[in-house]
Amino acid sequence: MKVVALAGGVGAAKFLSGLIEIVPPEDLTIIVNTGDDFLWMGLYICPDLDTVTHTLAGLSNPETGWGVQGDTFRCLDRLQQLGGESWFRIGDLDLATHLFRTNRLRDGCSLSEVTAEICVRNEIHCRILPMTDSPVPTLVHTDEGVLAFQEYFVRRKCEPVVKGFSFEGVELSQPAPGVMEALVSSGAVIVCPSNPFISIGPILAVPGIREAMRQAEATVVAVSPVVEGQAIKGPTAAMLAQLGHDVSAAGVAAMYADILDAFVLDTRDEALRSRVSDLGLAVRTAETIMNSAQARVDLARAVMEMVP
Amino acid sequence: MKVVALAGGVGAAKFLSGLIEIVPPEDLTIIVNTGDDFLWMGLYICPDLDTVTHTLAGLSNPETGWGVQGDTFRCLDRLQQLGGESWFRIGDLDLATHLFRTNRLRDGCSLSEVTAEICVRNEIHCRILPMTDSPVPTLVHTDEGVLAFQEYFVRRKCEPVVKGFSFEGVELSQPAPGVMEALVSSGAVIVCPSNPFISIGPILAVPGIREAMRQAEATVVAVSPVVEGQAIKGPTAAMLAQLGHDVSAAGVAAMYADILDAFVLDTRDEALRSRVSDLGLAVRTAETIMNSAQARVDLARAVMEMVP
Repeated sequence: MKVVALAGGVGAAKFLSGLIEIVPPEDLTIIVNTGDDFLWMGLYICPDLDTVTHTLAGLSNPETGWGVQGDTFRCLDRLQQLGGESWFRIGDLDLATHLFRTNRLRDGCSLSEVTAEICVRNEIHCRILPMTDSPVPTLVHTDEGVLAFQEYFVRRKCEPVVKGFSFEGVELSQPAPGVMEALVSSGAVIVCPSNPFISIGPILAVPGIREAMRQAEATVVAVSPVVEGQAIKGPTAAMLAQLGHDVSAAGVAAMYADILDAFVLDTRDEALRSRVSDLGLAVRTAETIMNSAQARVDLARAVMEMVP
Repeated sequence: MKVVALAGGVGAAKFLSGLIEIVPPEDLTIIVNTGDDFLWMGLYICPDLDTVTHTLAGLSNPETGWGVQGDTFRCLDRLQQLGGESWFRIGDLDLATHLFRTNRLRDGCSLSEVTAEICVRNEIHCRILPMTDSPVPTLVHTDEGVLAFQEYFVRRKCEPVVKGFSFEGVELSQPAPGVMEALVSSGAVIVCPSNPFISIGPILAVPGIREAMRQAEATVVAVSPVVEGQAIKGPTAAMLAQLGHDVSAAGVAAMYADILDAFVLDTRDEALRSRVSDLGLAVRTAETIMNSAQARVDLARAVMEMVP
């Protein structure tokens, strides 16, 4: 059975490192958010694609979940001496990927083509696709005005109050080659435990993707990114509150109700079972806090058990 | 007295590190060859500007004369794993300058503006100017066709036989701001011990520069880059031979005869004194092989003694 996963960054990458242990690589396609992509010193940075590829290649920094294990910051520190931008911490090894990608894009390659090349060089055998080959930068509408995503996320540390999101140019974008084919031919589509607004939201905003999932014959299962009203990492809970959603896993399930068949709650959220069930979804609980390699595999298995 | 120096890479940088010990920085302007500049992975690399700035900042690698002392190659090695270009060895610290420069050029700065910024950040107090703000890439005409300079120099290790040089677009280029003013207001113009074809040649090819030197009231002195028919480093001797010049310091002096007032021969080339003198130049000998910091200062002093 073919499996598709929709992925943001760190949470998704952890889950996927379990999933690749139980789904053969040739059967797995991962569709990754590119709304966070941005230019830094002229280099095209794709944080979520890099987090997923570095994690699946076994190269990610286990402490942060992003960046490269054992990376150094010699270039960045020297850049700071020269007066260059150093607010985004990019390591020397990490930099190589951005240089390579930017150069290939300049050569006329698409983002999906260069992503495929990076996968081959990292000996990743499943397929990793950007949601689209067009830049569709996430804009965060806040009480302090519209901010570029990294401006909000890294520089402002998610402090401004969010009023909404937009994905610039998304209405004219197309799913990257292979995305729609993967969605219609798969038996399972998994929405990884990622932020529903800024990780999964941009993917679902690419014309055709949400509709394809709604109509898919596949079983569509989401894993809650929220446990006891809190996200493991990042601003999911604050965004749910600021945008008037229920600050819980049930609030996330409601956002996806039109496309889901099933939802995986954390065991700590057993009490939410009936509320999610009332959305018309099959529900199960599982240990979603992935503190070990085994926990990641166990969660992946629990998710796949939702697929008939 | 104001002093101007025309400079290529390693040989010039060594000489200049002596010159700055005896000329106050506010009186010194260095005009640097940019014919070797090239794009690598989308970054704008200026080998001679970087060699001069790194050397004057005390950062250059004493073994190679270029690059940064104690640099590492983590980004480059990773880039190689990814399939990127790694034939040009750029270190992690070095990379920061290329990223900074490229980004500032993209912001709309001129090469002379970003060079001034790099000097300030490196605490270099004399003025370093590119010969021009326009790209004028050196093309090497060889028995194997026309090669880009780095292609000839680094990849092909100067093996093809040279038939001539051209500097693409030079006829439309202008001296960088400050270059002509420095030449006309100086009391001494020093042609550093650099390759006459590919280091000094491009500078003299920028419209106005050669003529300004010919007419300058300044004493124009060149230091021979050739000792006993050999260059300390690089393909100078081979180029002299391949292009039908006398393979000696006198051959180099003849190439500059129209702009020079004086020429400094190495002590080992005492026998060439009368031949250089016959070109109408004042001549002296000095120890031009700069094996120590003191030797660099001594040579600089010998050169300045030629200026009345």
